Amino acid sequence: MFEARLPQADVWKKVIDAIKELVQEATIDCSDTGVSLQAMDSAHVSLVSLLLRSDGFETFRCDRNMSLGLNISSAAKILRCAGSSDSITLKAGDKADTITFHFESNNREKVSEFELKLMDLDVDHLGIPETDYKCVIKMPASELQRICRDLGQIGDSVVISVSKDGVGFSSNGDLGSGKIKLSQTANADKPEEAVTIEMSEPVSMTYSLHYFNIFTKAAPLASQVILSLTADVPAVVEFPIEDLGYVRYYLAPKIEDDDS
Amino acid sequence: MFEARLPQADVWKKVIDAIKELVQEATIDCSDTGVSLQAMDSAHVSLVSLLLRSDGFETFRCDRNMSLGLNISSAAKILRCAGSSDSITLKAGDKADTITFHFESNNREKVSEFELKLMDLDVDHLGIPETDYKCVIKMPASELQRICRDLGQIGDSVVISVSKDGVGFSSNGDLGSGKIKLSQTANADKPEEAVTIEMSEPVSMTYSLHYFNIFTKAAPLASQVILSLTADVPAVVEFPIEDLGYVRYYLAPKIEDDDS
Amino acid sequence: MFEARLPQADVWKKVIDAIKELVQEATIDCSDTGVSLQAMDSAHVSLVSLLLRSDGFETFRCDRNMSLGLNISSAAKILRCAGSSDSITLKAGDKADTITFHFESNNREKVSEFELKLMDLDVDHLGIPETDYKCVIKMPASELQRICRDLGQIGDSVVISVSKDGVGFSSNGDLGSGKIKLSQTANADKPEEAVTIEMSEPVSMTYSLHYFNIFTKAAPLASQVILSLTADVPAVVEFPIEDLGYVRYYLAPKIEDDDS
Repeated sequence: MFEARLPQADVWKKVIDAIKELVQEATIDCSDTGVSLQAMDSAHVSLVSLLLRSDGFETFRCDRNMSLGLNISSAAKILRCAGSSDSITLKAGDKADTITFHFESNNREKVSEFELKLMDLDVDHLGIPETDYKCVIKMPASELQRICRDLGQIGDSVVISVSKDGVGFSSNGDLGSGKIKLSQTANADKPEEAVTIEMSEPVSMTYSLHYFNIFTKAAPLASQVILSLTADVPAVVEFPIEDLGYVRYYLAPKIEDDDS
Repeated sequence: MFEARLPQADVWKKVIDAIKELVQEATIDCSDTGVSLQAMDSAHVSLVSLLLRSDGFETFRCDRNMSLGLNISSAAKILRCAGSSDSITLKAGDKADTITFHFESNNREKVSEFELKLMDLDVDHLGIPETDYKCVIKMPASELQRICRDLGQIGDSVVISVSKDGVGFSSNGDLGSGKIKLSQTANADKPEEAVTIEMSEPVSMTYSLHYFNIFTKAAPLASQVILSLTADVPAVVEFPIEDLGYVRYYLAPKIEDDDS
Repeated sequence: MFEARLPQADVWKKVIDAIKELVQEATIDCSDTGVSLQAMDSAHVSLVSLLLRSDGFETFRCDRNMSLGLNISSAAKILRCAGSSDSITLKAGDKADTITFHFESNNREKVSEFELKLMDLDVDHLGIPETDYKCVIKMPASELQRICRDLGQIGDSVVISVSKDGVGFSSNGDLGSGKIKLSQTANADKPEEAVTIEMSEPVSMTYSLHYFNIFTKAAPLASQVILSLTADVPAVVEFPIEDLGYVRYYLAPKIEDDDS
């Protein structure tokens, strides 16, 4: 039996919203260490990886490992039925063919229970090799979202260039070109607005803006996003979820920049 | 001659908005007791009934009974031209072929006058039998709207089940099922948030969510909605309009629940 | 070389938004007196004229007269990339084939540079004869926008009638008619809400609401709009831009009012 409670239904809402534009169906893996999900988008270009650790839940019970196949957009529909301050408990029996979403209002005067039919999905778990990234950039998640949206007006690709003093994002297209530069912040009065760069060697690689614009749908989950880059290796875009875990996206760079 | 003034044009705006998705054309009946309207939707499945009592108006004059045939969506267009704090006076001459909407701003420096052409409409007045309902539920209007919207994600019908301690709303569909339960509120610090149930016998009936979702467009008119239910008799969904009257919707239950 | 800086990128955003529904491409003329633009809409019915005086810029340099052909909707896309409190510097080299939009955040930690390709456009400068208008109305820009939007629900044309005590806007259509009257404000505690009329002779002329609804997209630029009217002469709708200049629209009256 699996049962996991969080005081804020909102967290699950944002997690599923962060996934739903990338994958239509996916398997949630439950074990005593927590809940995880790994899936490639339908074009097999990018990978999303979710981890919510059991110790971050208010209550968590998972007697034996379970894999629950979800239709992600149906799960999103159900989560939209949660009130903004509802608690959420996910439940599934041992050989259940449904997963239960249980929402409870603050005063317990409204209780909702939705059952979502489970699906049989083929699962391929991909090993993600540990990499020692040459550049790790921490910056406001909403700023990355804004930059990707803005450059999406200009072109299809973004060149991310990291140097000691800052990180640049640039794009080219029919109407012209755009280049946005963020400096490393000198002091960090507000840590959530800081831009910090750890770098062992400069990197300048090109990525699909289409995918970056999908990844940054996860921005509501985190104040800061962590970009890990190394030449010719998939970039990692990580949105930490406070006290619980993360959503991470992996995307290979474009081999040659055919924008110009 | 008919002339009726309200300090808030907003009330008429909300009244017409509450009607316009159900009926395209309808007759307003004016008499010295007030203004009323009764109409069935085009599929002849539900009935809407409006009453605004003359003593709730700031000034009210109706020399003889008049029936004014309105195109409801044209009336809605004109009402959208009223400012949020304008007063409104409706006027019609004795054999007029137009009705006048007169809006005045607070400081009287903006005065607008719109004339809407009247229509000749066949009118069938339906006698609505007085019924002694087995269950009468009062609950926040916005909560009913939210519940119907949420269950609309799941299925086409809602089963409303009333017992002494609460009222349940449930629905089934392809993706699974949903059930929302409201408890009768113990104390009512905020009367507009209370859920109260008067019940002589439990009721559990099935209704079309499509129609409930149209009825709850009237939610801005009232803080509380009154649901009156009896098995195998049309439900009444009433939105009281403070000091003036009400909008009521009548809808027969579905004979058999063919969702499952 | 041309280089002009404003502390608020917002001003350029609103200027281009005020133009973009009327003209797709237009030439910006730069000289040491400032920046100007003049263009007719594609139907050659109305004219827009923009002036931003050099002394209103924070810094302004224009070594020799330049004409820069812009795709207006591309410029609007780039301006949407400016942050709400960014400064903006426009730059173009002497024989440049691009214009540069340089945005800088308050703390200078984000710097963006967009290059927009210039176009070769045929330019016809129209002489606008100085006219001594019979009526000059100053009124809140948002009020004119609201009135044109509201009357657009009713008909295609607006009759503007000016008399000593006020100005009337009226329209007719299939559903009926509408008439909105603004009185000249007696006292002007809030000058931006005042309606003032200077009149040497009454005027009543008919104009296309379609065009007035496009012109009033400029309302965010100005608290007050200035309407200058004379019978049988193009009306001028001016939105003053504080400390900088104006956007003006010219539109001939309809010869005969074929609404009725």
